[in-house]
Amino acid sequence: MSTLYTARLVLTQDNDRTQIRNGAGLVRGTTIAAVGPADRLRRENPDATVSDLGNAVILPGLVNAHTHVAMSFVRGLGDDKSLFDWLHEDIFPAEAGLTPEMQAIGCRISLAELIRTGCTAFYDMYMRQDVLADVASQIGLRAVLGESLTHFFPSVNGSSLEETLDRFRARIERTRENPLLRHAVAPHAVYTTDPDFLVKLRAFADETGSLFYMHMSESRTETQENLRTYGKRPIPYCRDLGILRNDTSLAHCVDVDAADLRILLETGAIPVHNPSSNLKLASGILPMQSYLRAGIPVAIGTDGPASNNAQNMFRELWLAAILAKYGSGDPASFSAQLALDLATRNGAAALHDLSIGSLEPGKQADFCALDLNAPAFLPGNNTLSDVVYASSGYENRLTVVAGRELYRDGRFSTFDYETLLAEARSIARSHTRLS
Amino acid sequence: MSTLYTARLVLTQDNDRTQIRNGAGLVRGTTIAAVGPADRLRRENPDATVSDLGNAVILPGLVNAHTHVAMSFVRGLGDDKSLFDWLHEDIFPAEAGLTPEMQAIGCRISLAELIRTGCTAFYDMYMRQDVLADVASQIGLRAVLGESLTHFFPSVNGSSLEETLDRFRARIERTRENPLLRHAVAPHAVYTTDPDFLVKLRAFADETGSLFYMHMSESRTETQENLRTYGKRPIPYCRDLGILRNDTSLAHCVDVDAADLRILLETGAIPVHNPSSNLKLASGILPMQSYLRAGIPVAIGTDGPASNNAQNMFRELWLAAILAKYGSGDPASFSAQLALDLATRNGAAALHDLSIGSLEPGKQADFCALDLNAPAFLPGNNTLSDVVYASSGYENRLTVVAGRELYRDGRFSTFDYETLLAEARSIARSHTRLS
Repeated sequence: MSTLYTARLVLTQDNDRTQIRNGAGLVRGTTIAAVGPADRLRRENPDATVSDLGNAVILPGLVNAHTHVAMSFVRGLGDDKSLFDWLHEDIFPAEAGLTPEMQAIGCRISLAELIRTGCTAFYDMYMRQDVLADVASQIGLRAVLGESLTHFFPSVNGSSLEETLDRFRARIERTRENPLLRHAVAPHAVYTTDPDFLVKLRAFADETGSLFYMHMSESRTETQENLRTYGKRPIPYCRDLGILRNDTSLAHCVDVDAADLRILLETGAIPVHNPSSNLKLASGILPMQSYLRAGIPVAIGTDGPASNNAQNMFRELWLAAILAKYGSGDPASFSAQLALDLATRNGAAALHDLSIGSLEPGKQADFCALDLNAPAFLPGNNTLSDVVYASSGYENRLTVVAGRELYRDGRFSTFDYETLLAEARSIARSHTRLS
Repeated sequence: MSTLYTARLVLTQDNDRTQIRNGAGLVRGTTIAAVGPADRLRRENPDATVSDLGNAVILPGLVNAHTHVAMSFVRGLGDDKSLFDWLHEDIFPAEAGLTPEMQAIGCRISLAELIRTGCTAFYDMYMRQDVLADVASQIGLRAVLGESLTHFFPSVNGSSLEETLDRFRARIERTRENPLLRHAVAPHAVYTTDPDFLVKLRAFADETGSLFYMHMSESRTETQENLRTYGKRPIPYCRDLGILRNDTSLAHCVDVDAADLRILLETGAIPVHNPSSNLKLASGILPMQSYLRAGIPVAIGTDGPASNNAQNMFRELWLAAILAKYGSGDPASFSAQLALDLATRNGAAALHDLSIGSLEPGKQADFCALDLNAPAFLPGNNTLSDVVYASSGYENRLTVVAGRELYRDGRFSTFDYETLLAEARSIARSHTRLS
């Protein structure tokens, strides 16, 4: 059984960034068997079921390399506050009362938004990721589950670090059959952990073959604090602890200097840019030109629904592109092609998953398809430009992960949206502050 | 004949920013007759046709205070270039061959996108605005038609200034029957006009009762050039020419100092913020905090499809909000409410039109309605926050201008979208560079 998806244009995102007019992708099982001109693939595969998307562009599904999907349960609470007030007045009280059931609903809400807007894989950081493991398995989205850890115990994760790590091991075991799920040890940040704790978690990641994931260098304040406490900037501090490797991804990396970038390059740790969150929290703007000049692949994330507030990677890659132009002072310094690379190929790098990020034979069949008849895509002078600079994400008509259709033309196929609406209402009612 | 629109929430944007749960707006002819709780308005108006939007939020239609709608004909051409290369390699050659028919198609494309994303009024600047007068009349959107003028003749406007102004007078006469259209004299910028020309156009605006509209202080380069040529920054230069009044709106106003702001305050000229365009062209970031402190109402515009590239005011107001937070270094410095004010009430100020900008009895019935069942609006903790920070604009289900429904649930009612698609394809074919 194979399906041939045909469309007006295919952006393969392969090494040559091949664009195929009247192109097609042949999906066999979970993988891409062939990509090429629709006419030829039709002739060569007469038995394939043809799914013609018409005037659409097929592209690799976007990779959201940093988020906290569960946090949609607090979306819209305390936006216009300082970080301190927000955490203490809104987030901590809300999280203290967070049941696994509410957490699951939060995850489902975000996954619906991710799927709707063409995202096929995401890297998450939150507590108690058994909940997300179940939700992501049920819905069928590709995910890295980063278990967020601070040195404060007891926590929602468990009464002690040992208990939390035991649960982590059990989760790896329990999800072994699901090829879409991988795991990461995710110490929250340098300011919520101590050095011993970080070294212990690094060893645990090595022992379990898990990825390694942290918030890093999000703001100048974080840097200054780390300098005061440890006499080093966050990135050299972590390098000296021996915890940065080529299995590591670091969310934010806004406040970085040249030495920081050399360490990223040497260790292979991948930075993840969260432009909306960084502006909304007034953290700063990631120096894209410095990363490009250093040859460091930057990925993009939405950050969580409490600090973005959307889970829409098209909005994010567009903002990354125009901020990069602004940041360099030169509109020619960054291109639509680079922006799409960040959200696809570099996203794959940040998830340390070479099976995704482009549409090529042998790769996983993770893709989306945007409607070229949408107003923002007219008149259609340059589709790559329209995808990056004009798309809202809601032109997406189709989201496929590992060959399975999760969304098509207004319908989610792996969960019931009406049920989700009822669940969402129960969350809104549970908060005291309603608008 | 009156229609009662009911919905889960109404954001009135009145002086008290009243939000009405289970609210309604009564539309009689082109105006709003009443706003209040749905139950009461139903009882009081038993003869009204009820249009229940269900789980939706009704809000004033967004006002796009600066754009060049015709320019969708060159959307996506030459994005990643310097301003000079872009103008000389892409825009000027394309505009040289621009027929009135192509210009009309460009206008229709943009108007479709504006209507789709809940915009009900816009302030346009372009040449040969007879074309837009016809398109806007046919489609039913509220517009101020700013005729863009430079001191270079002959131009697409006419063989001479006199001929252009004669056409302007004739256009005022010809559109007198359409209450949705108003007119502005729009000298392009200080660097494409000379002082005599500006004074002459100001007198012409006074003579014809037209509004006055310019690009102003878009970048540091513009300021430096004006200092070199005239010994003054652009805003004092224009003030000294006597051309700034309380009928004036100024697009961009990015590179401004304290004296510039005082002049805006004294003259009543309204600045229009174009955050996407200013980032994409690396022009800078408008100093929102300075404007707020000075008490100057800032409006928001998308700028044209060649430099944004979308015509989506929801994207724009969100970006304005998070850029304001970043610019001030304080996430608490700017609120969702302020952002919505910029795009509604301040938009009305920039169009110098007190009949729009809020939902109150006696105001024009210009509004839109967003679907609260959309993923980005879940769980629904705070709808105002969701509208500003999470909406893509494509949650919009209904666009009403002067009581007339222009868009509802996927269907445009005043033009044929299939015809527009065919027209758009003819434009894409006419460009040599296609992706």
